[in-house]
Amino acid sequence: MLITSRKNETAVKSRRLLSEKKIRDREGLFAAEGFKLAEEALKAGLEIEYALISEEGSEKFPQTVSLLEKNCTVFTVTNEVYQSISEQKSPQGIFIAGKILDKSVNLDKILENDKILMLDCVQDSGNLGTMIRTAEALGIEGAVLGSGCADPWSPKVLRASMGSIFRLPFCGISLSEAIDRAKEKDFTVYAAMLDGTAQRLGDLDFPKKTAVVIGNEGHGVGAEVAEKCGKLYIPIKGAESLNAAAAAAVICWELGRNDTSQNR
Amino acid sequence: MLITSRKNETAVKSRRLLSEKKIRDREGLFAAEGFKLAEEALKAGLEIEYALISEEGSEKFPQTVSLLEKNCTVFTVTNEVYQSISEQKSPQGIFIAGKILDKSVNLDKILENDKILMLDCVQDSGNLGTMIRTAEALGIEGAVLGSGCADPWSPKVLRASMGSIFRLPFCGISLSEAIDRAKEKDFTVYAAMLDGTAQRLGDLDFPKKTAVVIGNEGHGVGAEVAEKCGKLYIPIKGAESLNAAAAAAVICWELGRNDTSQNR
Repeated sequence: MLITSRKNETAVKSRRLLSEKKIRDREGLFAAEGFKLAEEALKAGLEIEYALISEEGSEKFPQTVSLLEKNCTVFTVTNEVYQSISEQKSPQGIFIAGKILDKSVNLDKILENDKILMLDCVQDSGNLGTMIRTAEALGIEGAVLGSGCADPWSPKVLRASMGSIFRLPFCGISLSEAIDRAKEKDFTVYAAMLDGTAQRLGDLDFPKKTAVVIGNEGHGVGAEVAEKCGKLYIPIKGAESLNAAAAAAVICWELGRNDTSQNR
Repeated sequence: MLITSRKNETAVKSRRLLSEKKIRDREGLFAAEGFKLAEEALKAGLEIEYALISEEGSEKFPQTVSLLEKNCTVFTVTNEVYQSISEQKSPQGIFIAGKILDKSVNLDKILENDKILMLDCVQDSGNLGTMIRTAEALGIEGAVLGSGCADPWSPKVLRASMGSIFRLPFCGISLSEAIDRAKEKDFTVYAAMLDGTAQRLGDLDFPKKTAVVIGNEGHGVGAEVAEKCGKLYIPIKGAESLNAAAAAAVICWELGRNDTSQNR
């Protein structure tokens, strides 16, 4: 079936899934664009509800399309209709709507791991997605997204995460609660702070079970959360501070390297 | 003097300085917005040609305004005119135009240092600015921007660099030439590659004089440049790769920590 009208019901729904969190929440669906994310979602075993492919997209990405056809309903749309849905300047013409996993009950599972990243009020979608990608790449085994974080299922987070969000176990839950429960499971929890008197990254041998909290780009880790944690400082030589995603990268590297020996 | 027309000559010039590289090059001026960048530029001793302050900005940031008044011509503009110039949604109402330093002849000076970051075709302005900020923060002493990099004097790079671009010595020059000259000055030069057979970051003790090349976000380090370098791999556990700015952060951390002992 070829969808030729911008007002087609599926076209309208798809457009709103990309742009409106409340529609994603109501439908229990996320939306993503591009062949890379579509393939990563399939590989990760996510349930894809449906896909839209532009006429151009089906010519350019026949393999992705046939993969999708095996897994869900695929609608073909005209290039014009696709462009009216897409949030991208030069879209590849591949859109998927997939089931959001309810990860809110997953904290116990996440705490079975050893190395965890906790994010306090990371509002920038690009930063959030990048941190998830970096964490997965460097061997962090789970993430906790505290209140005030960007919607992890927004298209911008999915894109910046390059699919890591489909794989890295994470849950959204109050950090105060997550920290209390992590401590019960023998985690040591640090908050990354711009505080030269804190313990210095690089000097510190992280305990086997360690969680690190990264704060908001402008304001850092909130006081209430920080109070529950040991303080961790990345020694800064020039400049005033690191961008939150850069700080996360350095911390994930140090945290993840602890057991590099096991991975060789 | 209060500027009340969007068509005022200075207003037009300011708008174009923000948005057009060719105007910046022709005038030899960069343009930046916000009190933070204005203060950092002054602190770094850059020559500010003129500043624009909106009526709102002069109420909110009297200290920055009086600092600027001591250093350059300051024009007050109506909030409407300021908004017509600004590239930001909620501008602070502070604009500066400052002299671009000709850094192209600086390679010899940069090579007097020990730890250098070289960027090959980093096209994203936000990434480029973040890398400069990260490099300065973590103790890298200079940067070389190869061809294909974003304009380091663009407002977006300046903003992402949080002023580091005013301080970190850098120059724009062909990387092939820069690498040859660095080797003549006893540098060891590595290219960060997604190549598991390369030397691994973390295993490697960097020589005293080390330069590392970070490549383009999508394509990595170009073949011609890579050929001249040792290969360096960041061990990746999950995901396929790191975002270029995250890779730069991890590498700057390892490169900069070599002499943390001197900084304590």
